[in-house]
Amino acid sequence: MKHLSVAAALLGLSSLASAQVMVVNQAISQAEVEAAQQAWCRALVDISTTHERSGQAAAKALAEKVIDSAYGYQMGAVLFKPTLTVNPQTFRTTRAGALAYFVGGDAAFPKDKGFALKGWTACQPVNSAIFLAGDSATSMGKVNITNKDGKVTTVDKTWQYVKDDAGKLRIVVHHSSLEYAGL
Amino acid sequence: MKHLSVAAALLGLSSLASAQVMVVNQAISQAEVEAAQQAWCRALVDISTTHERSGQAAAKALAEKVIDSAYGYQMGAVLFKPTLTVNPQTFRTTRAGALAYFVGGDAAFPKDKGFALKGWTACQPVNSAIFLAGDSATSMGKVNITNKDGKVTTVDKTWQYVKDDAGKLRIVVHHSSLEYAGL
Amino acid sequence: MKHLSVAAALLGLSSLASAQVMVVNQAISQAEVEAAQQAWCRALVDISTTHERSGQAAAKALAEKVIDSAYGYQMGAVLFKPTLTVNPQTFRTTRAGALAYFVGGDAAFPKDKGFALKGWTACQPVNSAIFLAGDSATSMGKVNITNKDGKVTTVDKTWQYVKDDAGKLRIVVHHSSLEYAGL
Amino acid sequence: MKHLSVAAALLGLSSLASAQVMVVNQAISQAEVEAAQQAWCRALVDISTTHERSGQAAAKALAEKVIDSAYGYQMGAVLFKPTLTVNPQTFRTTRAGALAYFVGGDAAFPKDKGFALKGWTACQPVNSAIFLAGDSATSMGKVNITNKDGKVTTVDKTWQYVKDDAGKLRIVVHHSSLEYAGL
Repeated sequence: MKHLSVAAALLGLSSLASAQVMVVNQAISQAEVEAAQQAWCRALVDISTTHERSGQAAAKALAEKVIDSAYGYQMGAVLFKPTLTVNPQTFRTTRAGALAYFVGGDAAFPKDKGFALKGWTACQPVNSAIFLAGDSATSMGKVNITNKDGKVTTVDKTWQYVKDDAGKLRIVVHHSSLEYAGL
Repeated sequence: MKHLSVAAALLGLSSLASAQVMVVNQAISQAEVEAAQQAWCRALVDISTTHERSGQAAAKALAEKVIDSAYGYQMGAVLFKPTLTVNPQTFRTTRAGALAYFVGGDAAFPKDKGFALKGWTACQPVNSAIFLAGDSATSMGKVNITNKDGKVTTVDKTWQYVKDDAGKLRIVVHHSSLEYAGL
Repeated sequence: MKHLSVAAALLGLSSLASAQVMVVNQAISQAEVEAAQQAWCRALVDISTTHERSGQAAAKALAEKVIDSAYGYQMGAVLFKPTLTVNPQTFRTTRAGALAYFVGGDAAFPKDKGFALKGWTACQPVNSAIFLAGDSATSMGKVNITNKDGKVTTVDKTWQYVKDDAGKLRIVVHHSSLEYAGL
Repeated sequence: MKHLSVAAALLGLSSLASAQVMVVNQAISQAEVEAAQQAWCRALVDISTTHERSGQAAAKALAEKVIDSAYGYQMGAVLFKPTLTVNPQTFRTTRAGALAYFVGGDAAFPKDKGFALKGWTACQPVNSAIFLAGDSATSMGKVNITNKDGKVTTVDKTWQYVKDDAGKLRIVVHHSSLEYAGL
């Protein structure tokens, strides 16, 4: 269900003290955006950890669950530009393309080594701005991801979310890029 | 501007204590809906009062201001079914049709006597439900309007609002009907 | 899935003749609104016919299917003002209230006799205006419903639709009222 | 006005041959997205050309017009990650930050040399995907920009558009990045 809350609030009218108004609020809140970002970061680290402990097949199974619950591929397409992809497979508008990017092992995407398999141990979003447009929300900022040697990689990241019928945020746009190194 | 609030909130990160995130929130709130309803009610009484004190021309001038600021006719049409209109002019999808309904005096709408000229002295919405869909919001409930003799007329009322670029709610759907008298 | 169409169209560029652009379109079209209106009318007649042939229980079972597929009660509430309801149960924001209105037989809604059980044989929407707002759409107009004696009842009707995740239109606002009889 | 078209179409009903339905359609179309992309490209080349012919002040004046008509800064913020910006001024959520990026000359943005002043002679979007969400639309793909020496720079680009009250598309999200060079 696409509702945030169904609240029954007393009307502020003495002569109508028993009347109640049902309120349904579908708008996406800042807290929901931040929770979705944290969930994405946790999933990235979880896939890395699963890979170390249980191998690529287990990591792939987890990545499939993550993609199916956090992205909106069932809506027809996700506009996904991962950090490290190149022509002619820069954009991963299909679920298969996203899965290959995260865990590799797909002959149809031969350059993919598995971004989520790089031994990530921490992930932290640092938002520059969050735009709550009502039925969608977009965040833009840095994401710092740390590997097991303590090295931090920082990416510039845009995520757009919509709510599905169950009230869960799903990523419908995801543009990630390495910081510009030329200045 | 279509923003509710541009808040700069500290990120909850000690290592980024000086970082700030800009938040723009365009979602329509329950408080905004209730304020728009109260404004509609006040405008109805104001037009009646102006009519009593200063005549139809003054009431018409005020009604034009009200329609231009509270409705969305500039978006192409408003889906407006006033309480007391009949075939073949039941629906008032144009500004001219709304103005004629409220203050009469338009030969193109010969049955309109001016709903807002009926000496209304009070107007009170009693919501049954408010649906906040993010970029639009709809309320449904009763509206009680009182004339100078103290007689209360109750109508069943649906209003849908969107925000314009200036952040102001505008009515884009308005269906009003007398209560069913058959039971 | 919430997509109307996933079209792959050739870019109009000779040097990129093999490039394709994936297009997902979630906007609600006029044809979809009209189809949803026709489906509502067919369902009303079907419930009446089922009632005549198979009794109230069968009609109720069909009405439950219709409500679950055509309305958005799973989103938290529907803003529904049926044609013939009165205080204190004018508004039917819950599924139970809608079902009682259409087929009666619910002690919690003692005045409901079952609007859909009145032997309707035909139903025809005549739109005054359709507002396609992108992710929602609203229609306003007359609906003419004919009973087995050939008598036509005309109501003033507002329906607002949104698309669910499966791409199906669902009614989220429904205000119906008898025509004003005072002029 | 936020309407695409106000069409009055004959209802397909012989007995209602004179009835008309007013249709307002606010949904963003693929053609509108493509036109906005072409306008952005033309503006980039125009600013470069103006700079060559008339100097930085003229280029800046033109850039201000372009930003004010093509972006949505008046909505509170634009989520803009230009191609060549770095910490701590990577994100240009304000009009001043966008203007400095395009034409330089602002002491508050000391690293900005003016991206639009680099002598661009051509600009061509090559979309991977366009997502029409009804009241917003997002494109993702490559943009090829050519300088006066014929050298082509390709960037990965995400643009999200909404319609303003005048029916004009405005960029509310813009993430641009150089192609990944590591593979």
